[in-house]
Amino acid sequence: MGVERISSRQVAERFGLSAAQMRKDLARFGEFGIRGVGYDVPSLRKTLERVLGLADTHPLVIVGAGRIGTALARFPDLESRNFRVVAVVDIDPARIGEPVADGRLRVQDASALDAIVASTGAEIGVLAVPAEAAQDNYEQLAATGIRAVLNFAPVQIQEVNDVRVKTVDLLIFLEELAFYLL
Amino acid sequence: MGVERISSRQVAERFGLSAAQMRKDLARFGEFGIRGVGYDVPSLRKTLERVLGLADTHPLVIVGAGRIGTALARFPDLESRNFRVVAVVDIDPARIGEPVADGRLRVQDASALDAIVASTGAEIGVLAVPAEAAQDNYEQLAATGIRAVLNFAPVQIQEVNDVRVKTVDLLIFLEELAFYLL
Repeated sequence: MGVERISSRQVAERFGLSAAQMRKDLARFGEFGIRGVGYDVPSLRKTLERVLGLADTHPLVIVGAGRIGTALARFPDLESRNFRVVAVVDIDPARIGEPVADGRLRVQDASALDAIVASTGAEIGVLAVPAEAAQDNYEQLAATGIRAVLNFAPVQIQEVNDVRVKTVDLLIFLEELAFYLL
Repeated sequence: MGVERISSRQVAERFGLSAAQMRKDLARFGEFGIRGVGYDVPSLRKTLERVLGLADTHPLVIVGAGRIGTALARFPDLESRNFRVVAVVDIDPARIGEPVADGRLRVQDASALDAIVASTGAEIGVLAVPAEAAQDNYEQLAATGIRAVLNFAPVQIQEVNDVRVKTVDLLIFLEELAFYLL
């Protein structure tokens, strides 16, 4: 947005945090704020991207070309935040070949997952499959050398070989909201 | 699963937490564990459901009948965890009348949102609309008397009148995973 300098208070307000916590968190990674002046935005941004592993683009492979998988394939802002869907796979012959990601890709055969990950350099797998298929698909992703998996299936995945899983459990979000209805 | 008693260690293992933290958290709501014996599962469950506001079924209205909205409308386990989609609305005339939620509902006209919320008693709204429409749709939901909103649009919603919003930002999950790739 063209902002050159920002105070911890301004950063904190933007994200609904406290300025003190903001300063403390950022200070863990070095001294790049100047007391009474604030942070230089371009260098703060660059440092944070490096610290968070967001400086490079991370290629994603999506397993499952149903509603969730195809929605994610065309999710806005992925690319501006350094993620890029490089492949969408499915086991359903009726889906293989269908255009996805706004026509940029076609659904590929999940049986070729190994070769697809190797050729695209995919780093993160996305599980958009039914609950009963999630663990198997996770293990298939893990076997390809993928090191991190985002799981949308409503099931707990047992991690193997340090291949990290993050499950997006929609019910948890709803349950958090239900708490506010009391 | 028919389990009658469970130890804090077993609960903790199931959720990847520490047994000590588990005991401490549960103790905040009363003394319902017995040292050396564990927790009585049915009464623990009942207490937690009450504490968390999950004892009653919460009706949901989904705004937006695109991929995310229709995926959520048929999301497994919603009902077993006391959420029920009671309506799906959209502004697109081509979508109105389409079957959703495995044929249990039809997409209704979003312009009738007030009447739909009133007649269904919907308590939670789900925003499954493009980013540019999210704030307006949130405010329309808030005007109906809905008190909590789950937002899937990749945008920060400004809350009005204490109508709580929880945004599911898929990029945050991906960014967390990217950190593990370092």
